[in-house]
Amino acid sequence: MKRRDFFKNGFLTTLGLGTIGSYPVFANSPNLAKEQAKNIIFLVSDGMSAGTLNMADILLRNKEGRATKWISLYEENLVKRALMDTASANSFITDSAAAGSAWGGGMRVKNGALNIGPDGERPVPILQKFKTMGKAVGCVTSVQITHATPASFCVNNNSRNAMAEIAEDYLKLKFDVMMGGGGNFFSAEKRTDKVDLYEAYRQNGFDLVRNKADMVNANGNKPIMGVFADDGLPYAVDRVNNEELKSQVPSLAEMTKKAIEVLNKNKKGFVMQVEGGKVDWAAHGNDAPALMYDQLDFDEAVAVAMDFAVKDKETLVIITTDHGNSNPGLFGGNQASKNFEKLYTTTASNEWVLNQINSDYNASQVVDLIMAHQNIALKTADAELLLKNYRPGDNGLYNTNNLPLLPLASMQSSHNSVQWAGNNHSGDYVELAMYGPGSEKLTGFVKNFELHNFMLEACGVQKNLWT
Amino acid sequence: MKRRDFFKNGFLTTLGLGTIGSYPVFANSPNLAKEQAKNIIFLVSDGMSAGTLNMADILLRNKEGRATKWISLYEENLVKRALMDTASANSFITDSAAAGSAWGGGMRVKNGALNIGPDGERPVPILQKFKTMGKAVGCVTSVQITHATPASFCVNNNSRNAMAEIAEDYLKLKFDVMMGGGGNFFSAEKRTDKVDLYEAYRQNGFDLVRNKADMVNANGNKPIMGVFADDGLPYAVDRVNNEELKSQVPSLAEMTKKAIEVLNKNKKGFVMQVEGGKVDWAAHGNDAPALMYDQLDFDEAVAVAMDFAVKDKETLVIITTDHGNSNPGLFGGNQASKNFEKLYTTTASNEWVLNQINSDYNASQVVDLIMAHQNIALKTADAELLLKNYRPGDNGLYNTNNLPLLPLASMQSSHNSVQWAGNNHSGDYVELAMYGPGSEKLTGFVKNFELHNFMLEACGVQKNLWT
Repeated sequence: MKRRDFFKNGFLTTLGLGTIGSYPVFANSPNLAKEQAKNIIFLVSDGMSAGTLNMADILLRNKEGRATKWISLYEENLVKRALMDTASANSFITDSAAAGSAWGGGMRVKNGALNIGPDGERPVPILQKFKTMGKAVGCVTSVQITHATPASFCVNNNSRNAMAEIAEDYLKLKFDVMMGGGGNFFSAEKRTDKVDLYEAYRQNGFDLVRNKADMVNANGNKPIMGVFADDGLPYAVDRVNNEELKSQVPSLAEMTKKAIEVLNKNKKGFVMQVEGGKVDWAAHGNDAPALMYDQLDFDEAVAVAMDFAVKDKETLVIITTDHGNSNPGLFGGNQASKNFEKLYTTTASNEWVLNQINSDYNASQVVDLIMAHQNIALKTADAELLLKNYRPGDNGLYNTNNLPLLPLASMQSSHNSVQWAGNNHSGDYVELAMYGPGSEKLTGFVKNFELHNFMLEACGVQKNLWT
Repeated sequence: MKRRDFFKNGFLTTLGLGTIGSYPVFANSPNLAKEQAKNIIFLVSDGMSAGTLNMADILLRNKEGRATKWISLYEENLVKRALMDTASANSFITDSAAAGSAWGGGMRVKNGALNIGPDGERPVPILQKFKTMGKAVGCVTSVQITHATPASFCVNNNSRNAMAEIAEDYLKLKFDVMMGGGGNFFSAEKRTDKVDLYEAYRQNGFDLVRNKADMVNANGNKPIMGVFADDGLPYAVDRVNNEELKSQVPSLAEMTKKAIEVLNKNKKGFVMQVEGGKVDWAAHGNDAPALMYDQLDFDEAVAVAMDFAVKDKETLVIITTDHGNSNPGLFGGNQASKNFEKLYTTTASNEWVLNQINSDYNASQVVDLIMAHQNIALKTADAELLLKNYRPGDNGLYNTNNLPLLPLASMQSSHNSVQWAGNNHSGDYVELAMYGPGSEKLTGFVKNFELHNFMLEACGVQKNLWT
């Protein structure tokens, strides 16, 4: 196959995965900007409303006397900032698939789709483009590696829910580093087709890593597929407070560091996505401890990326979110500072706490549990209400998929001063920061899909060849 | 009195208003930056959460096909941006008095205070400083001219509630242009001390203007006191849909334009504050129509300021808010775009609608009223609930101070997709944009009190003389 055809048809077509349509030829510009990016690190705190970013900063400043990396980049004037319009093709409110596809494919698609346009267009996902250019590519995430945001940089699919299929796509794409959770879509026992994808990855020349030690020891001579949990990874606050999880499951920063180490071996550079995916999950659950500490966990990955980029000088770093979620904020007037302090000493997410409660618990034990892990003195009446909100589900009396997260959050607001405007995505313009070669071209307001060409151009791909 | 003493003691001391403490000497720097500001226009959309700014932009783009001025400044890369930490001396959550005092006096004070520090400090308010330097100074606002935000640039007072006293202070300060509402603190009938401050202003050489025509005709040869309503001015959406209000009450943009025209006659330049004060009131009431259209009304004042500054080239424009409020957002997934459209055709605030309802109304009439003015088909059961939420008050069965604003907002959310995290101030870092000479020194993250010296320095006052 000619190189041109390869570009034209896209990577997955070549692999028999049915990409259609025509795509432009890639070419390096003859008039290169002096400052051209060799590498791109694209960091996404999924579902991060403005309040999430700034409450995490307030928390860290007051708990540890230091700013978050993200805000310190503003304080030190190291980055350019923009607001980003996150709409999808069919609503002001995007989901993660459509938002990621805007970046990944350069066009707005309908909610739920992965790089399939409203008229059936199948834009070539950006990591396939960069891979074809000879760059190393990869994704790391705190949710399933097959989840919408990483998938949006990698594949075309009518549905973000096709995670079992996406796990197969990754096998064929053979990207350099893919790490996160999602074992349910790899394991023979858990897949409905009973295919053992773990074994398939091993047989196809991958380094399959299943825990932190494996990951650290991977030498990067083979493509890495890292799967550290069946579902998403544990919340950061739960991971760091559990010795076993801490030893087995890498943090987002640790995955990011390893990925950079491996990807940077490629002489033509690399492009990677880093997703703090559980920030979004925490926002959906109005789970303040999970939200704060996963945002801070994401922030440590930002620090890893920035430390590399500052030394490297050829790396464009993009730090943003795909959409707001729940628009939390710190309220409570003169009581806010004292109330918010409770989150400084919290050692468990609401999800973890609620998962401890079983049918043997009485209200008093619920009060004790929450006091022990979250420093919040819940009223007995509230604890009773909480117990009543457990609903019978598929898994027996106490169904972990049906935890009373929202009632607990509502009860906590008067204690920790965190309040929420909802429990789903919002249409907010979101924060975006950029560092390194190419960032000088960022204007103060961008639309999500514009970032696709922006990244290509930053790496020297001429825009006018994209037709 | 020597000039030095005048500076040292502050303006109100000179006027017998009891300012205490010692203050630095002003001086123009011998090493002036080439780009020094002659004028400053400081625009505050009071209580503007991130969602308020971006929902107003989404509304205008989809209703009229154009961006807000504020966001267009980002799109065109005309301004520098920062996030601003808005905390007060005693809480992460500020009120407008403490937030304004941070800018106005250069130090954080406790909530409720106007330029009185936690230890009794009495920093000289910034407009007194600039007036002393020979600049023309003034404030325009859509709330009472004696309200916290304008007052924080003008006076020292232990309490923002002392609005009757502040109205007297303004008489003595004799600033060049002060315009807004607040007639209750000027009128002999409404003041508890029965003093006719209107008459006092006339006798003391002011041009007292009471309606739009008076304002337009004022020649600016005398200081202007403009009072266009007893309380705050009407919401923008109610003003433009009522011919009498439209003819009598100037918009914020019209006040801003007039103030610039008058203040700019001063050869030494001018400093003014422009406050969209009812944005905060609308947020407190979770009044989506009021919030959107007052934010857009503020945005027109931004356009007036920017149009002047772009031509003038010696004006520093600062566009920001003092704190978040209620953290509204656009929610509702795939229904959001269609739902939000209802606000494009809304012709009345919730406050106005609720004020129409009297004891003769039945549920069906309430449904009709809201459909006629807000294009929302409220359920009859909701209308009945609304009627039940009117509570007897001091003014009879239907007390306008006790309107069921929050129940109505809650009912509207499923219709217009606007949701709220609370009905009070939030601790969010807020958006700040800057244009013109001095703006180049803005870093990406600032604390509210830092803007005080920032403004002085932009006008050439040496920082090191402030001890």
